[in-house]
Amino acid sequence: MHFDHAGIATEDADTLAAQYSDLFETQIVHEEELEDLRVLFLDVENGYFEFLEPTESGTIQRYLDRNGPGIHHLALATPDIEQALARARDLDVTLIDEEPRPGAWGHDVAFLHPKSTGGILIEFVQH
Amino acid sequence: MHFDHAGIATEDADTLAAQYSDLFETQIVHEEELEDLRVLFLDVENGYFEFLEPTESGTIQRYLDRNGPGIHHLALATPDIEQALARARDLDVTLIDEEPRPGAWGHDVAFLHPKSTGGILIEFVQH
Repeated sequence: MHFDHAGIATEDADTLAAQYSDLFETQIVHEEELEDLRVLFLDVENGYFEFLEPTESGTIQRYLDRNGPGIHHLALATPDIEQALARARDLDVTLIDEEPRPGAWGHDVAFLHPKSTGGILIEFVQH
Repeated sequence: MHFDHAGIATEDADTLAAQYSDLFETQIVHEEELEDLRVLFLDVENGYFEFLEPTESGTIQRYLDRNGPGIHHLALATPDIEQALARARDLDVTLIDEEPRPGAWGHDVAFLHPKSTGGILIEFVQH
């Protein structure tokens, strides 16, 4: 399992992703509209920064209302997300997603509940 | 420039790092006492999770008092930290560290001010 991306909640994904692409000398490699948010992926060579901008009320808007902009989650890539979830269950980790679901970029994703991972929101992703 | 590590603020680095090492099937590869905190680095193949536990009052204790446990910063590795800081200055990014300073693991580090990077604390690190 290896680092895949850091999810960053922001009110303005275009501006922030453009600034970071200049700062890191890299580029935006994917953009997508999901149900209640826009996502932009910035290439950081061995992974991505995923900028999350709400387009309507939902989890990212609520996060921003409560916390302001910030690092929303960390995603680990696995070749076998079912096995990763089974191991999490064996370790008594509470899952937000009991089964993998379609996420950004056509990947299968599942989130673990931060109450059982030290307050940090962790995502598993299988490309 | 590529992902180096995510810094995670916690009141109990040993417990959280042990849980994550089971969850990700990996291990702690470095431990160190800094001025006012303990740091543990967990290997995630293409980078690290850095667990930050305060040992006395300081920036991490203040972060925990204000926010609770959370993802404190994102670090990008560069082969030339002076050049990376010069580019940040050219882009009108405010620097916390005008010059690289010794950080964990004997690396040179410099932090950018979150007020000019969309509320996200970014670290540059040169191994």
